[in-house]
Amino acid sequence: MSELRQNPATKKWVIISKERAKRPYEYTNKKKNLLDELPPYSETCPFCPGNEDKLPEEGIIYERKKSDNEWTVRVVPNKFPALTRCGNVEREEIDNLFLLMAGVGCHEVIIENPIHNTTIGLLPKEDVAEIIYTYRERFLSLSKDKRFKTVIIFKNHGEGAGTSLEHPHSQLIATPIVPQHIRHRIHEAVGYYDDWGKCVYCSSIETELKQKERIVSETEHFTAFVPFAAALPFETTIIPKRHAATFGEINDSEISDLSKILSNVLRTLYRKLNNPDYNYIIHTAPFSDKGEDYYHWHIEILPRLTKLAGFEMGSGIYINTSIPEECASFLQK
Amino acid sequence: MSELRQNPATKKWVIISKERAKRPYEYTNKKKNLLDELPPYSETCPFCPGNEDKLPEEGIIYERKKSDNEWTVRVVPNKFPALTRCGNVEREEIDNLFLLMAGVGCHEVIIENPIHNTTIGLLPKEDVAEIIYTYRERFLSLSKDKRFKTVIIFKNHGEGAGTSLEHPHSQLIATPIVPQHIRHRIHEAVGYYDDWGKCVYCSSIETELKQKERIVSETEHFTAFVPFAAALPFETTIIPKRHAATFGEINDSEISDLSKILSNVLRTLYRKLNNPDYNYIIHTAPFSDKGEDYYHWHIEILPRLTKLAGFEMGSGIYINTSIPEECASFLQK
Repeated sequence: MSELRQNPATKKWVIISKERAKRPYEYTNKKKNLLDELPPYSETCPFCPGNEDKLPEEGIIYERKKSDNEWTVRVVPNKFPALTRCGNVEREEIDNLFLLMAGVGCHEVIIENPIHNTTIGLLPKEDVAEIIYTYRERFLSLSKDKRFKTVIIFKNHGEGAGTSLEHPHSQLIATPIVPQHIRHRIHEAVGYYDDWGKCVYCSSIETELKQKERIVSETEHFTAFVPFAAALPFETTIIPKRHAATFGEINDSEISDLSKILSNVLRTLYRKLNNPDYNYIIHTAPFSDKGEDYYHWHIEILPRLTKLAGFEMGSGIYINTSIPEECASFLQK
Repeated sequence: MSELRQNPATKKWVIISKERAKRPYEYTNKKKNLLDELPPYSETCPFCPGNEDKLPEEGIIYERKKSDNEWTVRVVPNKFPALTRCGNVEREEIDNLFLLMAGVGCHEVIIENPIHNTTIGLLPKEDVAEIIYTYRERFLSLSKDKRFKTVIIFKNHGEGAGTSLEHPHSQLIATPIVPQHIRHRIHEAVGYYDDWGKCVYCSSIETELKQKERIVSETEHFTAFVPFAAALPFETTIIPKRHAATFGEINDSEISDLSKILSNVLRTLYRKLNNPDYNYIIHTAPFSDKGEDYYHWHIEILPRLTKLAGFEMGSGIYINTSIPEECASFLQK
């Protein structure tokens, strides 16, 4: 018989479907590992060194360098931006019903490495740290634009996760609104805080470390675990042990530590599931909630091994055909 | 420049990305129309007439007949049910944090027609009415089980929409909880009702019929339109003009009318987009909200022509690369 489990932070119920459950190894990507067939440099790739003329006009927004001639991470504008950095955030109401505003915001691409045929799980941790430094710099820089309420930093890896570009990259979108999705999470976190006098994410870390059933990896400053109510097979949360509401509050020693645990988890997924498609998202409180007691930033890694069907789209309840404890133990081994 | 539009019923913002926008015809399914290659009967299909021995043990739960020898719609148990009809709905709390309950509920398959190689868009409207009668019967029947709070009736059409079975079918899952997703919609609907003294869905119908920019089809009792803040290309809402909170309140003349507009919309999608993958979901208030003034049942048709990427998963904000008005006019022609 299946189980219904509730995520204490989001209050979402998930069906852990034991009838349909597959063993973890059954999720191994059966397709060819496309990375093996890519060259280290591609002439037509706008993100490869030397092809800067293929970038949008604004060129390079931010760059981190190893030496004068060697960059490690670059930030460039998205060529087809979902939101753009001009205009104001006034709302218009049509017929007393429909709210409308200009698509003001910012949409950037973080080129994670000069090498075309690599991925975070295969990079040395120093290179991964460079990516996270870049994320923090862009987060803090964009937080100064008063039109923007938050920034979503995310990665689409593989076609099933929504990317068509091969060169390793992540993206960020600064939005002029607090997404409702995040408002709901904050609302639940405030509710827990008012009930229990502590942060629900802090309680989750404590309980996961005590129960030891779903831990994937642990470092000095971070914990990685498959959530109790994981919605997807191999869903993994990476969360700082120190309470901080916004991602911008991460310090240098935490960045160094995060680069270890992030590359460790992604390398494990790469090896054990044969380079699966995945998304990750940095969940953070909005800029204005910096320092708040109730929310706690974290990274959500979502392998895209299953399809969302009508039930998930219509009810928001996910049917997870894997057992979170089994997924954690498979990744841990 | 793109636009941010808010859905007045859900309060979700959507990015209508004009930079990335494709023309409607560019979404036409380029793949072969697989339906053309299927036989009208398949020996191995458990849903084809004569293959009843391949059904789960409980057999046929409900059936509608044209004559003694000819059935039109059948309801059977799902072979791998996400939730099952036994056990109680007591919650357990682990470590004061994690809520857990048995997977109690009901998961049924509605076989829409005896013919293997057909689809709702190709059926005569009398046959479509039989499907809707079946939905209503199951809705009302399951509402009597006090453990169940609501039922999600949905359809997955095509592989990209999450189905692997060819035979035309829809599904329903009765849940022992009100999904949070639906709670949020009700919460917003109550807010609008308290502000304006009327149902937000009634206001939307009125405004759509007045603006005439996004109407796809209209009948005596129903309206079909691409929502102002459609999240997906060709997303279409079919909604009854008469206010009713739960789907179970639909009457016979509305069923006859719904069968016309539903088959009309699905036939148009089939023809103009070459049999695209899609989901539809019947959104309804929970059983206990029957007769309420603020919520309004409706059908959401979600063509699956684009992939959900990290931004959508992390922010809940969809980037729609089509213009709702253009989609409506393309479907209308």
